[in-house]
Amino acid sequence: MKRVVAKMRKGATKLEVAQALRLMECRKLEARFVNHPDGCMVVAEGEVKDLSWLEGLAGVEEVVETKSAFPLASRDVRATPTTVSLAPGVQIGGGEVAVIAGPCAVEDRDQILTTAESVKASGAKALRGGAYKPRTNPYSFQGLGSEGVSLLEEARSLTGLPIVTEVMAPEDVEWLLPHVDVFQVGSRNMQNFSLLKTLGRVDKPVLLKRGMMATIDEWLQAAEYVLAGGNSNVILCERGIRCFEKRTRNVLDLSAVPLIKSLSHLPIVVDPSHGTGCRNLVPSMSLAAIAAGADGLIIEVHPNPEKALSDGDQSLTLSEFALLMESVRQLASVLPGRVKEEVLCSSASVA
Amino acid sequence: MKRVVAKMRKGATKLEVAQALRLMECRKLEARFVNHPDGCMVVAEGEVKDLSWLEGLAGVEEVVETKSAFPLASRDVRATPTTVSLAPGVQIGGGEVAVIAGPCAVEDRDQILTTAESVKASGAKALRGGAYKPRTNPYSFQGLGSEGVSLLEEARSLTGLPIVTEVMAPEDVEWLLPHVDVFQVGSRNMQNFSLLKTLGRVDKPVLLKRGMMATIDEWLQAAEYVLAGGNSNVILCERGIRCFEKRTRNVLDLSAVPLIKSLSHLPIVVDPSHGTGCRNLVPSMSLAAIAAGADGLIIEVHPNPEKALSDGDQSLTLSEFALLMESVRQLASVLPGRVKEEVLCSSASVA
Amino acid sequence: MKRVVAKMRKGATKLEVAQALRLMECRKLEARFVNHPDGCMVVAEGEVKDLSWLEGLAGVEEVVETKSAFPLASRDVRATPTTVSLAPGVQIGGGEVAVIAGPCAVEDRDQILTTAESVKASGAKALRGGAYKPRTNPYSFQGLGSEGVSLLEEARSLTGLPIVTEVMAPEDVEWLLPHVDVFQVGSRNMQNFSLLKTLGRVDKPVLLKRGMMATIDEWLQAAEYVLAGGNSNVILCERGIRCFEKRTRNVLDLSAVPLIKSLSHLPIVVDPSHGTGCRNLVPSMSLAAIAAGADGLIIEVHPNPEKALSDGDQSLTLSEFALLMESVRQLASVLPGRVKEEVLCSSASVA
Amino acid sequence: MKRVVAKMRKGATKLEVAQALRLMECRKLEARFVNHPDGCMVVAEGEVKDLSWLEGLAGVEEVVETKSAFPLASRDVRATPTTVSLAPGVQIGGGEVAVIAGPCAVEDRDQILTTAESVKASGAKALRGGAYKPRTNPYSFQGLGSEGVSLLEEARSLTGLPIVTEVMAPEDVEWLLPHVDVFQVGSRNMQNFSLLKTLGRVDKPVLLKRGMMATIDEWLQAAEYVLAGGNSNVILCERGIRCFEKRTRNVLDLSAVPLIKSLSHLPIVVDPSHGTGCRNLVPSMSLAAIAAGADGLIIEVHPNPEKALSDGDQSLTLSEFALLMESVRQLASVLPGRVKEEVLCSSASVA
Repeated sequence: MKRVVAKMRKGATKLEVAQALRLMECRKLEARFVNHPDGCMVVAEGEVKDLSWLEGLAGVEEVVETKSAFPLASRDVRATPTTVSLAPGVQIGGGEVAVIAGPCAVEDRDQILTTAESVKASGAKALRGGAYKPRTNPYSFQGLGSEGVSLLEEARSLTGLPIVTEVMAPEDVEWLLPHVDVFQVGSRNMQNFSLLKTLGRVDKPVLLKRGMMATIDEWLQAAEYVLAGGNSNVILCERGIRCFEKRTRNVLDLSAVPLIKSLSHLPIVVDPSHGTGCRNLVPSMSLAAIAAGADGLIIEVHPNPEKALSDGDQSLTLSEFALLMESVRQLASVLPGRVKEEVLCSSASVA
Repeated sequence: MKRVVAKMRKGATKLEVAQALRLMECRKLEARFVNHPDGCMVVAEGEVKDLSWLEGLAGVEEVVETKSAFPLASRDVRATPTTVSLAPGVQIGGGEVAVIAGPCAVEDRDQILTTAESVKASGAKALRGGAYKPRTNPYSFQGLGSEGVSLLEEARSLTGLPIVTEVMAPEDVEWLLPHVDVFQVGSRNMQNFSLLKTLGRVDKPVLLKRGMMATIDEWLQAAEYVLAGGNSNVILCERGIRCFEKRTRNVLDLSAVPLIKSLSHLPIVVDPSHGTGCRNLVPSMSLAAIAAGADGLIIEVHPNPEKALSDGDQSLTLSEFALLMESVRQLASVLPGRVKEEVLCSSASVA
Repeated sequence: MKRVVAKMRKGATKLEVAQALRLMECRKLEARFVNHPDGCMVVAEGEVKDLSWLEGLAGVEEVVETKSAFPLASRDVRATPTTVSLAPGVQIGGGEVAVIAGPCAVEDRDQILTTAESVKASGAKALRGGAYKPRTNPYSFQGLGSEGVSLLEEARSLTGLPIVTEVMAPEDVEWLLPHVDVFQVGSRNMQNFSLLKTLGRVDKPVLLKRGMMATIDEWLQAAEYVLAGGNSNVILCERGIRCFEKRTRNVLDLSAVPLIKSLSHLPIVVDPSHGTGCRNLVPSMSLAAIAAGADGLIIEVHPNPEKALSDGDQSLTLSEFALLMESVRQLASVLPGRVKEEVLCSSASVA
Repeated sequence: MKRVVAKMRKGATKLEVAQALRLMECRKLEARFVNHPDGCMVVAEGEVKDLSWLEGLAGVEEVVETKSAFPLASRDVRATPTTVSLAPGVQIGGGEVAVIAGPCAVEDRDQILTTAESVKASGAKALRGGAYKPRTNPYSFQGLGSEGVSLLEEARSLTGLPIVTEVMAPEDVEWLLPHVDVFQVGSRNMQNFSLLKTLGRVDKPVLLKRGMMATIDEWLQAAEYVLAGGNSNVILCERGIRCFEKRTRNVLDLSAVPLIKSLSHLPIVVDPSHGTGCRNLVPSMSLAAIAAGADGLIIEVHPNPEKALSDGDQSLTLSEFALLMESVRQLASVLPGRVKEEVLCSSASVA
């Protein structure tokens, strides 16, 4: 099964797009229009033989054939890395290492404001915090809900940090839209296709965590759901996969970083907190993630981890986070740029 | 952390229930009212010491203390197996082996009606068929949607078979409610808590598939979400877990059957189609599931598997299914009842 | 890469075999002589085009081309199931269900003799018991060694049961040879190629446990090491694979049974004791294994599991085993033969 | 179960040791004498209550009680990191990053000499190369055997690099002893206890690869087998664990690095070649390993990977390796020492 992507010219008219769609359908290709950052595109799927007619079509700039199951997320369609903007001046993917930090869950006003100010001072670029929590047990603390969102907004006002928070259900997307800066999709929802489709229709960035059971290909196809809906602001997040090892909560698969870089133009951040489940492993794995080429980190921080309502074992204290940020900066500043490029270039040829 | 379940008397008044709730909250227990098949209950969580005051309360029949993370699903609260009724005269869990059969996806009128009539003739007790399909790839066939549901209803009219179909999003539950007999929750949605909570508020049975990377405890806690919402018609479905083996799509974990029986009163069926991914392994694994004590099977059947839009490799033909049903009946009829009881009794003591 | 097997005629002379070998080598095929139960064979590997010259060769009866990585273990070379004889009148693979039982480790004279007599009375066909134990921890009980072997021999004298015991090192094979009836290769040694090669040179049966992280193909290639050495008395043993589930020690992969049947002529038994790690799951999984088509079971039994030096949690008591054997006999007697054949025939076509 | 380690004084007499052993046995402790790098020790296991009598014993310097299943490998018995010497001036564990490089298998004279000279020039500290290869398939190239060992020795003469080569069977240890500098134990043999015990009796370093299915605790207990035999020159090697992901051969578990550092004093190196199975992922994962705190790397290098008899896909060319070594040096030189210490200190408290 091949896929064909027709990139439309910058000024392509609606009529030209409609014609491209119609002609593809005439040839029994299932085609759809997508609003991609590089300009609008038509993605088609089916038995394709001769494509010369498509290349000559009015409004069509370039035709890309690909065997990829995730054409829009792939480097076949976009060779240069994508940068996602979380807020004015705050980007993921532009060569800098960006760190998102904050508590697992928003617990109360004091907790979230204290954390926000502290992580801002330490150099974090965005604030994380869950208002809606996906908990294994129905009787566990499920998050503060809308009250938690308000507290996050207050923290943003105070610090200027954009806020990243999890959305668990399609019906929550609309009302959360004006309040949050980045929608986080949790590991358990990576293949909640109904949620992914809804997020494809908004224009806020989506931080898509890898499912704890997902292959790299399934993950990129989940991203493709969002991209195919027209939202190309997707940040991937490696957070560990499930395994037989019992000392750690998950196995942080850092090879996902260069692998994603070779297959996709999307930025990728690493979550060493869920990836290990142990506070004491977070610093080493943060540095390892950066050395592997990650575009950023997302780290759980709590003013008092021992009293945290969730994920206390894997949360750093405010001062541990400050210390870690020093090392991160030091490493990021010296990491030889050449290495990164070499890695990207060589790995681009991975089958 | 202990949990306490106060079983209310049959004729307990609203006032008595309210009082039980209030008194628990006074003692800093987080309590909630649940409409359980054995009568209404109050489930509380917290540091519990003396419970004599609760045992003497008006309207309270019995007080159960448990360490289980899934008290309502556990055998601590209900020792006898639960029977779930799919339609008048069609039950899962009552000692008989019930088989649900049908195609992966409803593809067209002819396909679903032919299949329904054939599996009915072979002895199936319910018809499965997907109208909304959770597909890994956004460009794959996503199901016929509401048109598929109408076709399922037509098949029900024709054959009398109750219909089992997957629901993927909370917002679809309400409109599907009058049309379907059993809501299926797919493997990828096992921890879609928003969906589980919605299904806890309806009274139709829920067939809850095990997540492909879910532990037994996570699965039972997912069931607890539905039970705690007030819907106790939950059927568990083992469908294989993800593994390194490449010859099969998943590893069918049949030990889940006796393990679930020892931990829970809920019925469990087995899906050898997804569990193996290979048509030729389905017969052996169907028989093995029954010998392991399963309450039923759910099997993919297609009039022409080679042309199926999804899961063709694992679907039986109509005649292969007919043949299998003969073996199933033969085995079920001779399976020594004593064995089953012995297994249940001994396994009841698993820690 | 193709492989070619030249089956030699019954009365083929040494000269004819030598000639076949030489001519293959002339054509740059790597060839080796194997003493197979169906007569001697020459197995070659390489780029093969025309084979007519080989078919016409003196002494050559049949030429089989195969893509299988395990030609001698595959059904390409031998279509009919192999029966392995443990002792006069005791066979695995001949259509009957044979049960091997005994303690994890031989602990003392009383323990092994009591167990042997009891499992014999209950219907076991062979006695298992470890004299050399592969223990994760160097300070744990490592088995009684040669003293344990003597006790096993005493148990054999007493009961007539052939003895199955684990061998852990190539250097132990020779001295154990006259004392044991079946060499067991444990899960951790499935790819101890040095041991497998040594066992390929003896004529006693080898019970080859599946590695806890081995694919079906790796397992059959491990068996091929023994077969290629000239020993074709290999019994495969599914004993569970490693997984994330914590309630059970391993996940018993019963789909291995029909899968092996479809790929290989070798008999397969199932070990539900290690496969689950829980005594209470053993009965259900034993019956499931038989229903799946297993040729036998290997079950841990101990007179007093609570005092066992190893594997107490998964060992049945003598009376639990007696009870289980009744169910096994009942099920085996009624299991429709037609089903088994149907399964075998259909699954023979698995790719 | 507790374990007790009595560290003997430097000049402790044989009599004093014998007395310590005897007195422990009188108290029903199973005790053994171990020749540890920090001086000789007596390790005992059993129900221990009062230990004051042991502390006062002649020749006993210090008594350590531990719950660790691997006391000699643990930080309870030795708090400072161990340095293993491969050859005069070549150490693993002393704070420097040491790189071992070479082909998967020794294939011919030209291949191994060319590789040796080149990796030496690029900065490798030792040469790897397999003479005995553990191959999944019995018909695959099994290594050159003793001829391969001679070629490795020639490479050592030429370059001065110590040689690291795999040993697969206990009976090969003795004759290999004078020829090799480091014995490698492969992943499939991590729990070949017979081999581990044999290696415990020699004084050459052992590079112990993690089993592809082994937990951290099983791995450290395998190391304990070697240490308990009296050989304390153990280097651990993380090489990836088996998983469901299909794009990579294994999942390289870099969290093993800080975890091992927190639990053990033994040095740990990382094998990104087997850990990923993809040449293009090796550079990123090498840098990540170093940032995670690894004491070294072991990397597959081949003059012509496309023609390699094994592992070609994951081998670097000579020039790719040279390029990588530049990055490794650059990173190692700037990696903030403080970070490492901070990690070690904090992680020392992991439960």
